[in-house]
Amino acid sequence: MKTVIIGGIAGGLSAASQIKREEHGAQVIVLEKSGDVSYAACGMPYNLFYKDKPVEDLHALSLDAIRKERGIDYRLYHEVVAIDPSRKEVTVVDRELSREYREKYDYLVYATGNQPNRLSLPGFDDADVFHFKTLDDTRLVKNIIYEKFPANVILVGSGYTNLELVDVLYNMKITPIILEKAATILPSFAEEIRSKVLEKLGEKRIQLHTNVDIIEKKGTVVRTASGDFEAGMVVVSIGVRPNTALFSAAGGELGVGGAVKVDRFLRTNLLDVFAAGDCAEHYVRQLGRNGYMPLGPVANKQGRLIGSNIVHNNAMKEFCGIDQTAVFKFFDLTVATTGLNELQLHGNSANYVKVHVDTPTRGAFPGGGTMRIVLLFEKETGLLFGGQMIGQDVVAKRLDVLATAIYKQMTVFELAELDLSYSPLYAPVWDPLLIAANKAIKEV
Amino acid sequence: MKTVIIGGIAGGLSAASQIKREEHGAQVIVLEKSGDVSYAACGMPYNLFYKDKPVEDLHALSLDAIRKERGIDYRLYHEVVAIDPSRKEVTVVDRELSREYREKYDYLVYATGNQPNRLSLPGFDDADVFHFKTLDDTRLVKNIIYEKFPANVILVGSGYTNLELVDVLYNMKITPIILEKAATILPSFAEEIRSKVLEKLGEKRIQLHTNVDIIEKKGTVVRTASGDFEAGMVVVSIGVRPNTALFSAAGGELGVGGAVKVDRFLRTNLLDVFAAGDCAEHYVRQLGRNGYMPLGPVANKQGRLIGSNIVHNNAMKEFCGIDQTAVFKFFDLTVATTGLNELQLHGNSANYVKVHVDTPTRGAFPGGGTMRIVLLFEKETGLLFGGQMIGQDVVAKRLDVLATAIYKQMTVFELAELDLSYSPLYAPVWDPLLIAANKAIKEV
Repeated sequence: MKTVIIGGIAGGLSAASQIKREEHGAQVIVLEKSGDVSYAACGMPYNLFYKDKPVEDLHALSLDAIRKERGIDYRLYHEVVAIDPSRKEVTVVDRELSREYREKYDYLVYATGNQPNRLSLPGFDDADVFHFKTLDDTRLVKNIIYEKFPANVILVGSGYTNLELVDVLYNMKITPIILEKAATILPSFAEEIRSKVLEKLGEKRIQLHTNVDIIEKKGTVVRTASGDFEAGMVVVSIGVRPNTALFSAAGGELGVGGAVKVDRFLRTNLLDVFAAGDCAEHYVRQLGRNGYMPLGPVANKQGRLIGSNIVHNNAMKEFCGIDQTAVFKFFDLTVATTGLNELQLHGNSANYVKVHVDTPTRGAFPGGGTMRIVLLFEKETGLLFGGQMIGQDVVAKRLDVLATAIYKQMTVFELAELDLSYSPLYAPVWDPLLIAANKAIKEV
Repeated sequence: MKTVIIGGIAGGLSAASQIKREEHGAQVIVLEKSGDVSYAACGMPYNLFYKDKPVEDLHALSLDAIRKERGIDYRLYHEVVAIDPSRKEVTVVDRELSREYREKYDYLVYATGNQPNRLSLPGFDDADVFHFKTLDDTRLVKNIIYEKFPANVILVGSGYTNLELVDVLYNMKITPIILEKAATILPSFAEEIRSKVLEKLGEKRIQLHTNVDIIEKKGTVVRTASGDFEAGMVVVSIGVRPNTALFSAAGGELGVGGAVKVDRFLRTNLLDVFAAGDCAEHYVRQLGRNGYMPLGPVANKQGRLIGSNIVHNNAMKEFCGIDQTAVFKFFDLTVATTGLNELQLHGNSANYVKVHVDTPTRGAFPGGGTMRIVLLFEKETGLLFGGQMIGQDVVAKRLDVLATAIYKQMTVFELAELDLSYSPLYAPVWDPLLIAANKAIKEV
């Protein structure tokens, strides 16, 4: 059995590793067009901070380990330029040797990731405009930072990545200036969470300009309808789109958000072709249908399942799906969400209630902080729809309790009955989640 | 409606507060025999460390706030000496005014807590032998520590409290010496967890003597069958027993561990007498019966429910129960458990499997540590029975995910499907719990 995998970052390497784990003798070829083996993309912003920490530290494994320990035929600088599903083969260009060859497959895994959206405005193809999607992008940005020491950086867009960059740049004494097209930031978060992020931006005196229509970039100046902004470099993070050109050209069917359409077994419409990660759809459990939420853990889970489904192709398993859990750090705050957000609840015409509480994170002992919890739940039944948190101290792993509760379709009544760990070093005697649940109960 | 509450620490004050919250006009009298209002007992070991932090900082509220803001008639130094259930009245001694009086009740809440077991051996009634149960105990211990600066302290027993004291004393440059009667420590923890605690004791070069039969204490020397030990003070923590004398004398029925027997509504066998907290039984969900596990959160939850059941006595609710969750800090380690332990599983003849994993707590970024997770689950179905964790960094709130999983009777298959929060700052891309679940799946 021979499997060819296009793309070797998260989903691709996970699929490859799982195949070899479950069937030692299987042939697995990974074709990665970049010069990087699988890496932790979510760690890129934080690598910038450490001048002497090579970006290669973000590699998940060495090429040697992938090849020797895992037995995977992993080929760097090998770009697939065509898929022929009828002959079950791909056309590959080896960029190092400048040669083209074909590779047959029994199974193909399409794991090409996504790419940043670009601003198609004058000047935004300049060499001092960056995106922040790949390790190569990180190398470029890091070089500029440590070679030119820009006093300030214009960040176009205010999504997670750019907010993480705000935090990192600020701590490097580089002034971030955020230009956002929309009226506000973090649209999928509740106002109660967003206001805390805005408060922190204010506290740090960071420029956030909203409702900004960019006209062009001229030299170091970004011209907008609301004024000109000057900076030593520009980073554009205005969303992503799945890499699907190769797949589409081969007759592949696309789905939500233009991503590769997959069934619950992660099969595409092309025979024996699976898709995983940032290029593919992701089943959202609460919606009962596919969505598009490109994040590392889902890519890894999907890759692993595909590996398993290829080996056990007579007893394939369905992808379990996601609950849209996400988290990012913003200065001393952790900002996290799980489950459905208000935009989705409005979209579904759900009769939901929202409550929020502000609580200490620990008993009356040094080292704690405060946090805010937002719960979204069904008015009639108390069924939890979603939860969001922001605060100091332990937030991300507290959110995981809500992610678990949502996975099990718990109500706020059940949430209030949880026996959560207590010592004043770790929580108040009424855990923040119990306080939130007790408040929610009154609204059902 | 008039409610009298005996004991005003955790369960007692919770009950009082809930009654006033739900029925503003209700009369609530709390009779507390000590001079302290409700306090965070679990914080006592850590208070020792801070010389200038008064132990009164552990008070949950001021007497003034309890009386004025909550409208509770809270009486300090008022000891109940008898309950007459047929006349529905209690006999009270006001220790300050040295007068005795009777108080009628419509409802009585028995929340007298527990007391430390004592060593009935020669010398263990000396003034330099301490227990560590009340704020008054803390005052005594703290005085000795800062007045006499003992070079070392003998800790008899190696339960949570004494292990917390080991940590605190060590950090105060006082040498702890542990004398344990049993063959080892932490019997309810898996060997895989216990060994890590023992390793830490070794690393810190702390004397732990097991299988120790104490003979007597003579002056500063504790004589045992295996040798003599000398120390500036002795702290005995060899378990607790519920305070039930008053209740028994009134014809009250006792249950598990000699605690006040309660039904699911937390009623005792005496008419209109409820019981909460460390003096009462606690319903263990997984066992489907009452157990005895005196901890702060359960006392608070029980008190709150009793308050509610007294106000809504025509629509009482059952106490939700506990999952035996507990956590303590031990140097840089957090040690936590939830669900059934192996002793209980052996006792129930369950066909269980145990797996453990060692994982990093975060992605490859500074600030993380390592942790060990032990999962206990049913061989045939993968149903989670229990989980234990030990490690640096965020452990307690990760355990809460397991506590939630156990509350919802999840299997290890379901655990592996959770969508837990990921950023390299907070977790590896495969969360430790997912790694543990994936390992467990292979054993079902």
